[in-house]
Amino acid sequence: MAEAEGARLRARAWGIRIGSQGPGAGNAITDVPGVLVGAVDLVEGSGPLEPGRGPVRTGVSAVWPASGNLVERKVPAAVHVIHGFSKCCGLVQVEELGWIETPILITGTLNVGRCADALIEYLFFKRGWGFHTLNPVVMECNDRYLNDIAGRHVRREHVFAALDSAAAGVREGNAGAGVGMKCYSFKGGIGTSSRRLDIQGSPFAVGCLVCTNMGSLADLRIDGVRVGESLRGGSDPGAAADRAGGSIIILIATDAPLSGRQLKQVARRATHGLARTGTCSDSGSGEIVLAWSTGYRIEDPGDQPCVVSRRLHDGRLDPFFRAAADCTEEAILNALWMAETMTGRDGHRLERLPAGKVRAILERAGYRFHAQG
Amino acid sequence: MAEAEGARLRARAWGIRIGSQGPGAGNAITDVPGVLVGAVDLVEGSGPLEPGRGPVRTGVSAVWPASGNLVERKVPAAVHVIHGFSKCCGLVQVEELGWIETPILITGTLNVGRCADALIEYLFFKRGWGFHTLNPVVMECNDRYLNDIAGRHVRREHVFAALDSAAAGVREGNAGAGVGMKCYSFKGGIGTSSRRLDIQGSPFAVGCLVCTNMGSLADLRIDGVRVGESLRGGSDPGAAADRAGGSIIILIATDAPLSGRQLKQVARRATHGLARTGTCSDSGSGEIVLAWSTGYRIEDPGDQPCVVSRRLHDGRLDPFFRAAADCTEEAILNALWMAETMTGRDGHRLERLPAGKVRAILERAGYRFHAQG
Amino acid sequence: MAEAEGARLRARAWGIRIGSQGPGAGNAITDVPGVLVGAVDLVEGSGPLEPGRGPVRTGVSAVWPASGNLVERKVPAAVHVIHGFSKCCGLVQVEELGWIETPILITGTLNVGRCADALIEYLFFKRGWGFHTLNPVVMECNDRYLNDIAGRHVRREHVFAALDSAAAGVREGNAGAGVGMKCYSFKGGIGTSSRRLDIQGSPFAVGCLVCTNMGSLADLRIDGVRVGESLRGGSDPGAAADRAGGSIIILIATDAPLSGRQLKQVARRATHGLARTGTCSDSGSGEIVLAWSTGYRIEDPGDQPCVVSRRLHDGRLDPFFRAAADCTEEAILNALWMAETMTGRDGHRLERLPAGKVRAILERAGYRFHAQG
Amino acid sequence: MAEAEGARLRARAWGIRIGSQGPGAGNAITDVPGVLVGAVDLVEGSGPLEPGRGPVRTGVSAVWPASGNLVERKVPAAVHVIHGFSKCCGLVQVEELGWIETPILITGTLNVGRCADALIEYLFFKRGWGFHTLNPVVMECNDRYLNDIAGRHVRREHVFAALDSAAAGVREGNAGAGVGMKCYSFKGGIGTSSRRLDIQGSPFAVGCLVCTNMGSLADLRIDGVRVGESLRGGSDPGAAADRAGGSIIILIATDAPLSGRQLKQVARRATHGLARTGTCSDSGSGEIVLAWSTGYRIEDPGDQPCVVSRRLHDGRLDPFFRAAADCTEEAILNALWMAETMTGRDGHRLERLPAGKVRAILERAGYRFHAQG
Repeated sequence: MAEAEGARLRARAWGIRIGSQGPGAGNAITDVPGVLVGAVDLVEGSGPLEPGRGPVRTGVSAVWPASGNLVERKVPAAVHVIHGFSKCCGLVQVEELGWIETPILITGTLNVGRCADALIEYLFFKRGWGFHTLNPVVMECNDRYLNDIAGRHVRREHVFAALDSAAAGVREGNAGAGVGMKCYSFKGGIGTSSRRLDIQGSPFAVGCLVCTNMGSLADLRIDGVRVGESLRGGSDPGAAADRAGGSIIILIATDAPLSGRQLKQVARRATHGLARTGTCSDSGSGEIVLAWSTGYRIEDPGDQPCVVSRRLHDGRLDPFFRAAADCTEEAILNALWMAETMTGRDGHRLERLPAGKVRAILERAGYRFHAQG
Repeated sequence: MAEAEGARLRARAWGIRIGSQGPGAGNAITDVPGVLVGAVDLVEGSGPLEPGRGPVRTGVSAVWPASGNLVERKVPAAVHVIHGFSKCCGLVQVEELGWIETPILITGTLNVGRCADALIEYLFFKRGWGFHTLNPVVMECNDRYLNDIAGRHVRREHVFAALDSAAAGVREGNAGAGVGMKCYSFKGGIGTSSRRLDIQGSPFAVGCLVCTNMGSLADLRIDGVRVGESLRGGSDPGAAADRAGGSIIILIATDAPLSGRQLKQVARRATHGLARTGTCSDSGSGEIVLAWSTGYRIEDPGDQPCVVSRRLHDGRLDPFFRAAADCTEEAILNALWMAETMTGRDGHRLERLPAGKVRAILERAGYRFHAQG
Repeated sequence: MAEAEGARLRARAWGIRIGSQGPGAGNAITDVPGVLVGAVDLVEGSGPLEPGRGPVRTGVSAVWPASGNLVERKVPAAVHVIHGFSKCCGLVQVEELGWIETPILITGTLNVGRCADALIEYLFFKRGWGFHTLNPVVMECNDRYLNDIAGRHVRREHVFAALDSAAAGVREGNAGAGVGMKCYSFKGGIGTSSRRLDIQGSPFAVGCLVCTNMGSLADLRIDGVRVGESLRGGSDPGAAADRAGGSIIILIATDAPLSGRQLKQVARRATHGLARTGTCSDSGSGEIVLAWSTGYRIEDPGDQPCVVSRRLHDGRLDPFFRAAADCTEEAILNALWMAETMTGRDGHRLERLPAGKVRAILERAGYRFHAQG
Repeated sequence: MAEAEGARLRARAWGIRIGSQGPGAGNAITDVPGVLVGAVDLVEGSGPLEPGRGPVRTGVSAVWPASGNLVERKVPAAVHVIHGFSKCCGLVQVEELGWIETPILITGTLNVGRCADALIEYLFFKRGWGFHTLNPVVMECNDRYLNDIAGRHVRREHVFAALDSAAAGVREGNAGAGVGMKCYSFKGGIGTSSRRLDIQGSPFAVGCLVCTNMGSLADLRIDGVRVGESLRGGSDPGAAADRAGGSIIILIATDAPLSGRQLKQVARRATHGLARTGTCSDSGSGEIVLAWSTGYRIEDPGDQPCVVSRRLHDGRLDPFFRAAADCTEEAILNALWMAETMTGRDGHRLERLPAGKVRAILERAGYRFHAQG
C-alpha cells in the first residue's frame, strides 16, 4: 500500500479542513503562548526481538505546559479518561487538586517509571525546583509492535534532552514518543493542531497534541468519509498490529482562564473528535485526555486567605468544546499524514498513510477540498 | 424546507446503513427479549404560551427493561453522563448499586417529579411490588420550544397508560416523550435501532432507544456526510430552537450477561455514535446514557452468602462497544427520519427532516446506498 | 429505656463539646448569613399500617441556601456520596455544573417526586423564577419504620408552607423531615451545629444540618465514648427499627468563597464526623452530603466572556475540613438529644435518647464535661 | 516524651480491642491466605541534609496480593481516594478494569518511578511474566521529615530483595516503607490487623496493612479516647513534623469473592476507621485505599464468551464494612505501638509512642481493657 510520495505534508495542505474555526499561526499546540514541545527519537538495531536488548523503536516527547516555574506557579489542569487501560502516572493528584507542576512526558508504556524518575531529577537538580515533593506526569502508549518494550530504552539523558530541546513548533509523526506508534493500522505517532477563538471580542487559543496508537484500518474515516473501508479492500495489512492493542494520549491547552471543572468538560469533548475518526475505543486501549489553561496560575497568596482571579463564564464554553473536538480530529489526521513508514522488531512494518490514494478516495466521495489550510 | 413526502420511512429503508453488524428483527430495542416500550402523546391547544395552561406538546415514554418482577429480580444497570445539565432522577442509586428495579420513564424536564410519583403508585398499588422503598428512574429532555413546560402536563393517568401500553416494537419520532423534542434543528424525538452479535458461537442482541433534543443544523452529519451544512445554505431556520437548549437520553439494552462495570464501558461508547452525528455536546445539554443487561438478575440467594453467575469476559467486549456506538447513531437517524413536522406554542415550528433532499445530498457526496436495510 | 426528663436540651447544654473550634451564635446552619430553614410536621392517626392511608409520621424540611433569587444568582455547590442507596433528586446537575438554583427539600423517600413537583410550582408561580427549566434538589431518608410511606403524605401545600415558614434558627429532632426518622435505634431526625473560623484575620462561618436515619444502638459513640454498648446491655430495643434500613442527609454551608472542588473536599469530611459517632455506613444506607457557599454567586457577566471573583486558597482549607467533621458530629448528637419519643404505625415506637443515663455513662468514663456550650 | 520501655508490644497486647469481630491467627493482612509481605529498610548516615546524598531514612515494602501468576490470573481490586494529594502509580487502570496484576509496592514519594521500573524488570526477567505490558502498582507516603527524599535511595536491588523476602507475617513500625514515616506526630510506619468473619456458616478473612504518615498529636484518639490532647499538654513536639505534610496508604485484602463494586464499597469504609483515630484528612495528605479479593481470579475463558463465578451477595456486605473500618483503626494503632524512635536528617527526631503514658491516660478515662488480644 506504500506509495512513492515526496516530503510529507499535513492534512490541511492536502485540502482537508476540519470544522469552521480557523487554526492558529502554526496550527500546533505551541500556538498557545508558553507551550513548548521537545522530543528525542530512539531508533537502533533491527531483526528479531531480544527482550531487553532491542530492536529499539521508541522515544520520549516533552511538553512544557506554560512558561516559568511550574512548581511555584502551578498550572490549572484536568484529566478525562476515555478508556483506562493505561499506565499513565501522576493523574490521581491532577484529579484531586486540579493542577500540574511539571512538564508532561509522553513515552512507551514501560518507560513510564524511568521517565518519572528522570523528570524529578531534572527539575530538582537542573532547575532547583521543589526538593520537597513533586508530581511527575508521564503519559504512555504501547509501542510493542515495533519496539523491544521490555528494554525500557528511554534513559535519563534522553528525558533531559527532550526537555532541553523543547521549542515552539512540533515535529509530527515518528517523533519522540511517536517513533514506534501506529494509527488505524498505519504508522502514526505525534500530531498537533490549533484553533483561534474570539469570545465577545477577546481572542483565545486552543491547541491539541496527540500521540496516536489506536484504531483498525476498516474504521478509519477522514472528515466523515469511510476511507478505511475503501483502502482495505478485502485485506487488512495491519491486522497484526491491531491485535497489539491501542491507546491515544490527547493533550489540550488553552490560554483562556478555564476552571478545573471547565477544563474537564473541554477534555471530554476530545472524545467527539476521536470518535469522528472512526474508532469505538477498544477495550484494550488507554485513552487519556489532559487539558490545561495558561490563563492563570495557582500561587500562594501569602498573608491573604483568598485569591482574586478571572474565569471564563460557563455560558461561553461551547466554542471551546468545538475547538477541542476539531483539534483532536485534525491532530490525529496530522499524525497519519506526517508519519513515515517504519520497520521494527521481527520485521514488523507499519506503512505510512498513502496520502495520494486517500485523496483519490475523497475525490470519488465528492469531498469538498479547500484551497488553503 | 418542508417537503410533501408520504409516510415516513426509517433511515435504513432509504439505503443508509450504519456499521458492519446486522440489525435485529425489528431493528429496535425491543429486539432484546423482555424489553417493552409504551408511550402516551399529549397534544392540545395552540397559540401563545400561557404558562401552566398550554399549548401542550409533550408526552411520556415507558420502557420495561426486562420481564417479570423487577423489584424481586433486579436488573443490572449502569449510567454514564456525557454532559450533566440534566434533571434525571434515580441515577445516584444506579451508580452505587448497579441495578434498576422499575420501568424507565422518559418525559419533558419538569414532568419528572410527577412521573416518579406516578411510577411508585403504579408499582405499589397496581402491581403490588415493593411497599418498602423503590427507586423510580425518570429521564428527561426539555421540550419548551414547543410546549408549555410550566404546566407539567403529564399526569398520573398518562404514566399508567404508557406503562400499560408497552409492547414489543417502538413508535418513533413524535411519540411519547418525543412529541415536543427536536434534533439538529429539525423535529426529532424517539428513535431506536438494534444489532445482532455472535460471540464465539453465542448469539446476543444489543438495542438502543434515544430521545433526541440536541444539535444544531450546521453540525448534522449523516453517516459522515456533512448534510447539515448543505441543507442550511446561508440560513438556519432552527436557530431559535437551538437556543432553547439541548439534551439526549440514550438507553442501551443487551441480553448478554454484562457486569455493571462492563455496562458502564458500553454506555460510554454511546458518545462515539452521538459524536458521529455531528454534535459536540453543548454546555446546556443533558446527555445521559443508561445501559442494562437482561442476561441475569440480581436476587437474594436466601440462606447462602454467595451467588453463582455467568458474566461476559472482558476480552469479548469490543463487538458490544461497536454495537452501542452504531445503534446510537442509527437510532438518532431514525428519530430524524420518522418525526413529523410539529407546530407548538407561540407558533414555534419544527420541520421534519426533508428526507428527499438529504438523499440528494448524499448522492452528490457519492454515498454508497444499500439496497436493503 | 425512656426517662421522665423535662424539656430537651442540646448536647452542648449537657456539657458535651465537639472539637476545638467555637460555635456560631445559634450553633446552627442558619449562622451562615442568608441560610433559612423551615419545616412542616405531619402526624396523623395510629394503629396498624394501611398502605396509602396511614398512620402518618412524616414531614418536609426546606432549606434556603442563600438570599435572593437563586435562579439568577446561582449558589456554588458540590455533592459527595458516602453510600448511594438513595433516591435524592437533582444531584446529577450539581455534580456537573457545581451549583444549585432552588431551596433544598428534605423528606421521606417516596415523597421526593411530589416535593420536586411542588418546588417547581412554588418557584415558578409563587416567585416567578425560571419558567425555562429548573433543577429541584430534594433529599430523602426512609421513615417507613413509623410511617405509611406508600401514602406519600407530603403534598403541595406542605411544601409551600415549609418554604414559607423558613427562618433563621432550626427546630431540631422531630421536625419536618425528622418527624419519622431514627438515629442509632433511638428517635432521631433534624440536628444542626455551626463553627466560627478565623482565617488570617478574616472571619468565616461553617454550618451543618443533618437529617439522621442511620445507625445501630451498639455502635453509638458520644465524643468517642462507647455509650451504645453500655446502654444496650444485653438487649437492643431498636433492633427491629435497624432492620428497616438507614440513611443520613448532611447539608454543609459556609460563607467562605469556596470553589466547587473545595466544597466537594469539605463535603467529604462529613464522613469523618459521621464515622466518629460509630456507624460504618450500612450497605442499605443512603448517605449524601451537599455543601455550598454563600461567599459568591454564579451570574452571567453579560457582554463579558469572563467573571472576576475571589476564592479561598487551597492552603487554607484545613480549618474548614475540621469544621465540617465537627459540625456533622455535633449535629447528629443534637438530633439525638432533641428528638422526642414517637409511636407510629403498627405500634412501632422509637424512644428518645435517655440523656440522663448517657450523662451517667459519660461520667463513669471520666468524660471531661464543659461548663458552657 | 520518650520512655524507657522494653520490646514493643502491639495495641491488643496492651488490652486495647477495636470492634466486636475477632482477629485472625496473626492479626495481620497475611491471615488472608496467599498474601505475603516483605520489606527492605534503608538507614544510612546522619547530620545535615545533603539533597541527593543523605541521610537516608527510607525503604520499600512489597505485598504479594495472592498466590501464583498474577498476570495470567489477575486479582480483582478497587481503589478509593480519600484525599488525592498523592503520587501513587497504576491506579487509573485499577479504576477502569478492576484488577491488579503485580505485587504492590509501598515506598517514599520520590522513589515511585524507580520502584515501578524495578517491579517491571523483576516480573519480566526474574519471573518471566508478561513481556507485553504490565501495570505496576506503587503506593507512597512522603518521608521527607527524616529522609533525603531527593536522593531516591530505593534502588532496583532493594525492590528485588523486598519482593524476595515476602512471607506470611508482617514486621510493623519502622519496616520497609515505614522506616521514615510518622503518625500523629510520633514515629509511625507499617501496621497491620485482621478479622475473621462467619457469613451464614462460611468463614472469611479480612486483613489490612497501613503505611501511616498522617495526623497531628492533638487529634489522636485511641479507641475514642482523646489521648492526643492529654499527651500534648501545652506543647506539641511534633509540630514541625506535622508541617511536613501527611498521607496514609491502606491496603485491604479478603478471601471472600467480592466484586469490584463491592471492593470499592469496602475500601470506602477504611475512612471510617481512619476517622476514628482522630484525623480529618488534611488538604496536603495523600490517602489512598486499595482493596482486593483472593476469592476468585480473572482469567481468559479461552473458547468461551463467558465465565461462571461466585460473588458475595450485596446483602452480606455489612460485616465486611465493619471489618474494614476496625482493621484500619487497629492497624494504625499497631503502627504507633510498634514503631521505634528514629532520628533522621538535620537532627529531626520522631519519638515512639509512650505506651505506658497512653495506658495511664486510658485508665484515667475509665477505659475497659481486655485481658487478651
